[in-house]
Amino acid sequence: MSEKTIPYKIYLNESEMPESWYNLRADMKEKPAPLLNPGTGQPLTAEELSAVFCEELVKQELDDTTKFIKIPEEIRNFYKMYRPSPLVRAYCLEDKLGTPAKIYYKFEGNNTSGSHKLNSAIAQAYYAKKQGLKGVTTETGAGQWGTALSMACSYLELDCKVYMVKVSYEQKPFRREVMRTYGASVVPSPSDTTEVGRKILAEHPGTNGSLGCAISEAVEAAAKDPGYRYVLGSVLNQVLLHQSVIGLETKTALDKYGIKPDIIIGCAGGGSNLGGLIAPFMGEKLRGEADYRIVAVEPASCPSFTRGTFAYDFCDTGMICPLAKMYTLGSSFMPSPNHAGGLRFHGMSSTLSQLYHDGYMEAVSVEQTEVFEAAEQFARIEGILPAPESSHAIKVAIDEALKCKETGEEKTIVFGLTGTGYFDLYAYEKYNDGEMSDEIPTDEQIAASVAKLPKV
Amino acid sequence: MSEKTIPYKIYLNESEMPESWYNLRADMKEKPAPLLNPGTGQPLTAEELSAVFCEELVKQELDDTTKFIKIPEEIRNFYKMYRPSPLVRAYCLEDKLGTPAKIYYKFEGNNTSGSHKLNSAIAQAYYAKKQGLKGVTTETGAGQWGTALSMACSYLELDCKVYMVKVSYEQKPFRREVMRTYGASVVPSPSDTTEVGRKILAEHPGTNGSLGCAISEAVEAAAKDPGYRYVLGSVLNQVLLHQSVIGLETKTALDKYGIKPDIIIGCAGGGSNLGGLIAPFMGEKLRGEADYRIVAVEPASCPSFTRGTFAYDFCDTGMICPLAKMYTLGSSFMPSPNHAGGLRFHGMSSTLSQLYHDGYMEAVSVEQTEVFEAAEQFARIEGILPAPESSHAIKVAIDEALKCKETGEEKTIVFGLTGTGYFDLYAYEKYNDGEMSDEIPTDEQIAASVAKLPKV
Repeated sequence: MSEKTIPYKIYLNESEMPESWYNLRADMKEKPAPLLNPGTGQPLTAEELSAVFCEELVKQELDDTTKFIKIPEEIRNFYKMYRPSPLVRAYCLEDKLGTPAKIYYKFEGNNTSGSHKLNSAIAQAYYAKKQGLKGVTTETGAGQWGTALSMACSYLELDCKVYMVKVSYEQKPFRREVMRTYGASVVPSPSDTTEVGRKILAEHPGTNGSLGCAISEAVEAAAKDPGYRYVLGSVLNQVLLHQSVIGLETKTALDKYGIKPDIIIGCAGGGSNLGGLIAPFMGEKLRGEADYRIVAVEPASCPSFTRGTFAYDFCDTGMICPLAKMYTLGSSFMPSPNHAGGLRFHGMSSTLSQLYHDGYMEAVSVEQTEVFEAAEQFARIEGILPAPESSHAIKVAIDEALKCKETGEEKTIVFGLTGTGYFDLYAYEKYNDGEMSDEIPTDEQIAASVAKLPKV
Repeated sequence: MSEKTIPYKIYLNESEMPESWYNLRADMKEKPAPLLNPGTGQPLTAEELSAVFCEELVKQELDDTTKFIKIPEEIRNFYKMYRPSPLVRAYCLEDKLGTPAKIYYKFEGNNTSGSHKLNSAIAQAYYAKKQGLKGVTTETGAGQWGTALSMACSYLELDCKVYMVKVSYEQKPFRREVMRTYGASVVPSPSDTTEVGRKILAEHPGTNGSLGCAISEAVEAAAKDPGYRYVLGSVLNQVLLHQSVIGLETKTALDKYGIKPDIIIGCAGGGSNLGGLIAPFMGEKLRGEADYRIVAVEPASCPSFTRGTFAYDFCDTGMICPLAKMYTLGSSFMPSPNHAGGLRFHGMSSTLSQLYHDGYMEAVSVEQTEVFEAAEQFARIEGILPAPESSHAIKVAIDEALKCKETGEEKTIVFGLTGTGYFDLYAYEKYNDGEMSDEIPTDEQIAASVAKLPKV
């Protein structure tokens, strides 16, 4: 198909939106390892998980054989408020870079949560509502997940309690107000409202908090009240399942124009966006139908793929959550206060960890000043102010496009632009003022927290 | 056409985007009155205007006979980065209100400027670049116009100096950082960097500033340097011309599905969004081809249409700008610090003023607490956090839909959702905390500033 027929933005019709989520695990020969009960060391049963998660979500969490799971009509209608999201051809960026590469990005930022997080938030809130629950608790790092969940809960009239990583809570007061506008209550974490929070505060006074801490607090808060369950915006199999809408739409849009990507790039914190974006492409790769380079990009300050260990670990700092087998820096690892709050998690999705371990994908880590440099460049050229998290993928997409400029290869690069940076202006201010630094953990720091991994 | 075939969001193809702007003035029998030279009282010539504006923009400003003006290819390509914008069917809002009315909104917020302002910013920057200028100066109220201009200037590599209304500068520090990220310099207005700024500061120490003040400063700054021209985000005929893309896209989208609106609603500050949205519909009305109710919504704190006088007045507080015939509260009118910064202008577009004077449109004023109530309701139901400015239109659209609920009429309501409220969280915080008040000018206040209107 001729180049010129490809629009700047490929929008699917609503009728072309996926009717089912795609469960990547069904196509994996080596399945991701099961969650373990930290007390018994045995795989968690559906019954055990039901104390924490809604029943339908427990099913989805444990199901590694059903390939397609139907998206309920109510969720599809909610999706239609902000989806399908555009697949954008970065013509302007290509021109400015002078690269023969063709660059596409799937833009998930055009909704008030500012990111892809809404795709799973509405699903999790929907199943909670369907089960007759009163509300849900959760953690949020950058605030995108908390905002998304607030929006979903407000729509379905569910209570929503958010534990927000302290450093983000302080750097992003306006995030708090968005959540409040959507009726949520927001607590900076670690807080003195939970036992685990008080314990962490006692051990690490003045801590900036981390996703791991906030998870512990949210889980404890949910466990205290039978009308509540805990929901999580990343890492879990169920989240990657819901996020497969990103990849499915991307693939449909590319197929519509006969485009075959060579490289697929996504930022990786817990893996929600990356797992969703790559799902159908990885499926083809697993089934031997196609080959793609798939690249995870993580912050050098929290490098679970590139410097972590593939082992069972707690998903939270307070060590009250199940054990997951994943690339991890150790649940006691405290990342430096990098501005990409959404990527400051010590571990990584079990599904993605298994695929990385089995050689199906690559990973690279980048430093935050070079990430903001790419972010500013992208904002000025493509007009979208990107989230720091998303900008990790931008940085590597630009690097790959520049490699093509050197070699003359006309590769097709697809990356996930997970969200906007409207609530990250504090970080941009630091960058604009030349006050941003790169803090990378030493080998000793990582070894110290890895040494505390649970023995399974 | 059956109801169900109308999607949640109507996206045009890029090939359906308008190729020309529509110049509403060409269809007006009673033309808007010309700008006058305040010194001579005579209509401003193209030559006089060229000292302030780019030559091509002067032509557009004065041209009230050419119906369609071709959009340069470079501008159309820039438009494709964020346009066409969706026309959204507010199914969820209709359901929650229980109204038989059909509600549509044209959503202009899905770009980093957060509003429709980019439509004219790129055009004005393009003509400045084409004329070989070094840069442009401007004012900004809420910050949307300043951000839009920064983006356009950054794309075209032009200098950009923004005078930002002081109250917005203080309430929206993150706006400043967006503009800086796009390379602009931002000065709180009134400032001591201009003569007129120093004069206003001496007369009104502690003033919150106003669009009128900031315009004076930006004009003075441009006049000092022959490499610069002044650009304005609203009020002017040229701006309404560029903004006609909003209405043209809206009309194409409605026509595609055979939908005929009954009521068209837009918020009105200087008139840029309203003038753009209604352009093709008003054109039909002027030509006697169709009839529509067209409603301007303004803040009760700055009610130029509903409580102003139709007369020649200065466009700026410093009284250094040309005189425009318009509905005005007097150029010395200082609105209370309403949070809808983009609507705090003492006057109104001459084109819209003439149409209102001739009975082609209605106007209504609303108070800010009821506006924020509507904004929160809309955010929770439709998922988009609206700008305070846009929420004026939401408030009246909801009111009209509720009237339909009473009467059982199935009216079709279209309103302009000009932008997002991501940089207005300070205002939302006030509302969330119950600390928002309504400050409405007294008759005496308005009479005092109207008494100072220039004698022409």
